[in-house]
Amino acid sequence: MTQKIAVLSGDGIGPEIVEQAVKVLRALDLSLEIQEAPVGGKAFDLHGHPLPTATLALAKESNAILFGAVGDWKYDKLPREHRPEQALLGLRKALGLFANLRPAILYPELANASSLKPEIVSGLDILILRELTGDIYFGSPRGIRTAPDGAFAGSREGFDTMRYAEPEIRRIAHIGFQAAQKRNKKLCSVDKANVLETSQLWRDIVTEVSAEYPEVSLSHMYVDNAAMQLVRAPREFDVIVTGNMFGDILSDEAAMLTGSIGMLPSASLNAAGQGLYEPSHGSAPDIAGKGIANPLATILSAAMMLRYSLNNSAAADKIEKAVQKVLSQGLRTADIYEVGTTQVGTQAMGDAVIQAL
Amino acid sequence: MTQKIAVLSGDGIGPEIVEQAVKVLRALDLSLEIQEAPVGGKAFDLHGHPLPTATLALAKESNAILFGAVGDWKYDKLPREHRPEQALLGLRKALGLFANLRPAILYPELANASSLKPEIVSGLDILILRELTGDIYFGSPRGIRTAPDGAFAGSREGFDTMRYAEPEIRRIAHIGFQAAQKRNKKLCSVDKANVLETSQLWRDIVTEVSAEYPEVSLSHMYVDNAAMQLVRAPREFDVIVTGNMFGDILSDEAAMLTGSIGMLPSASLNAAGQGLYEPSHGSAPDIAGKGIANPLATILSAAMMLRYSLNNSAAADKIEKAVQKVLSQGLRTADIYEVGTTQVGTQAMGDAVIQAL
Ligand SMILES: CC(C)[C@H](C(=O)O)[C@@H](O)C(=O)O
Ligand SMILES: CC(C)[C@H](C(=O)O)[C@@H](O)C(=O)O
Repeated sequence: MTQKIAVLSGDGIGPEIVEQAVKVLRALDLSLEIQEAPVGGKAFDLHGHPLPTATLALAKESNAILFGAVGDWKYDKLPREHRPEQALLGLRKALGLFANLRPAILYPELANASSLKPEIVSGLDILILRELTGDIYFGSPRGIRTAPDGAFAGSREGFDTMRYAEPEIRRIAHIGFQAAQKRNKKLCSVDKANVLETSQLWRDIVTEVSAEYPEVSLSHMYVDNAAMQLVRAPREFDVIVTGNMFGDILSDEAAMLTGSIGMLPSASLNAAGQGLYEPSHGSAPDIAGKGIANPLATILSAAMMLRYSLNNSAAADKIEKAVQKVLSQGLRTADIYEVGTTQVGTQAMGDAVIQAL
Repeated sequence: MTQKIAVLSGDGIGPEIVEQAVKVLRALDLSLEIQEAPVGGKAFDLHGHPLPTATLALAKESNAILFGAVGDWKYDKLPREHRPEQALLGLRKALGLFANLRPAILYPELANASSLKPEIVSGLDILILRELTGDIYFGSPRGIRTAPDGAFAGSREGFDTMRYAEPEIRRIAHIGFQAAQKRNKKLCSVDKANVLETSQLWRDIVTEVSAEYPEVSLSHMYVDNAAMQLVRAPREFDVIVTGNMFGDILSDEAAMLTGSIGMLPSASLNAAGQGLYEPSHGSAPDIAGKGIANPLATILSAAMMLRYSLNNSAAADKIEKAVQKVLSQGLRTADIYEVGTTQVGTQAMGDAVIQAL
């Protein structure tokens, strides 16, 4: 049975890195129907909207989306609803991609890349599970208004609503416990229950769900403390589950601990197993078109796609092993280069992975 | 003129570290009226409330509050309004302590304490300015209810409101620019304007205020990126200004970069110059009563108090120099001890500071 992949490469370095991932997928000779569509700033330029109807339709009817990156300085002045990031938020919401898996892994070969001491980070392997369709990202009401009450009644104010409903918390908690079960059986739920009502409910429901997973040890941590512990002793964590807003911050912090964000893939899944797969780094417009961007995070995102949405763990393993191999061969793009290794460009890195398959 | 200090030492290691700071203040022989009152879990035990009326009244009529720490596991099961942290939130709100100054400084003598490489953090000196009386911490409406609308209408949900009014943003922005003016003239405003309406207003107002400070260079950064850049290259920052929620997370992350949070003071000021001064670390109930806690963050908080609320920079300088001196003498409490230095207890450290005055 042919599986359909929507390829949305987007802005900045998106097209060049996605090209390599697609090349790797094709080299595996699977039965995939691959179709491209514009997204982000490029789509705005072409169709006046960062997420055109046709792109959304393609995404919906595909088994999985391989996503590059969106955003460029030249769109910064647009009203928010036309800015490139809205494509990402729109896809998450429209497809119900509530479970965002963001591994933070430090490859032994890249231990020096980290700004942390090797004895603190070497061997780091944690998974941040971020809820992706709720929270203050999408909560209504929100807007700019005249403050109706409080000490500043009558002044102009901005406001947003953080909200989490019980079923939303429950389903992401289940994913968290199941992920921990397959790993080191430790789940840390991060919230701000000493201040927020939303977090209090979050904590209660996660605790309730834990009864179904007696072999997983659950801990709760406040978000400020989590931000500290990630710096102090990141390897103490196994799986972290948290809401959309805290997850945005902590997953980026965790990614940066490795010093090699150019290596980190991510997956965003819905209840039907459909998923959007993208590198954890952004569109890096400053190096776009130069052929020096690191395609490995995108190639590893394609591996996650095979594993989670296309039910092909064997092919996923193959890609991951090939990436391991090019690293141990000493090949490095500019972002992870160090003396004693061989610097290669985007395309050469893609070719090397195919060679290593 | 006698100045009045409220001493609220609180829970855990609070009393022992505050004792040392008070000792240092007394040694300076200033004209201070020092009065103690219970706060936090201790106050709950004594009076059934973490912030008793008499304590709040004392705080209000004082020029400054020297605060220890609140919190202990034994209060974790209490309903939120009785938990120790509520004392802190209550004091902030009741006294209008909207400007929270949290320096993250790495003393050269303690460079090894950091989990980051010395070439990344040595000489770190940044100031996080966190708005402290607004945002989702205090915004209403909030609560647990049946979801009135959305995909989960009818389910139980938790909700909170993020809000910032124009004058609130304006006043903290001014403090930020003024702080930057006295330092390296770089202000980074952190928000999530690509997602939140509150942040959009925040960004607009901070940009507006910047016109009054042409000599300060202003940048804007999304909170997820800020969490990354703090790990990657923290010394690029000078002053960071941000809201209550993002500031909670980023100030703790920044503090932990130093690896010596036991050294970091903080100040929370209102428009009249009244302030609450407390160490950036918590109540550490696990080591309470053992006489091993580091009193230096509290002693340095007393120095900040002299500088910001009591208009006595000379005395503040004296304390700060004395702390520098004990460090260069090689004296260390357990939290910052390393081979080749001399380990001392809480009281001996306090004595050494007095000796060095
Ligand atoms: C671009 C932005 C809206 C997005 C987010 O905040 O979710 C990004 O930071 C991410 O983490 O994918
Ligand atoms: C105790 C808690 C309510 C408090 C906060 O979140 O503000 C603390 O984390 C802080 O940063 O002072």
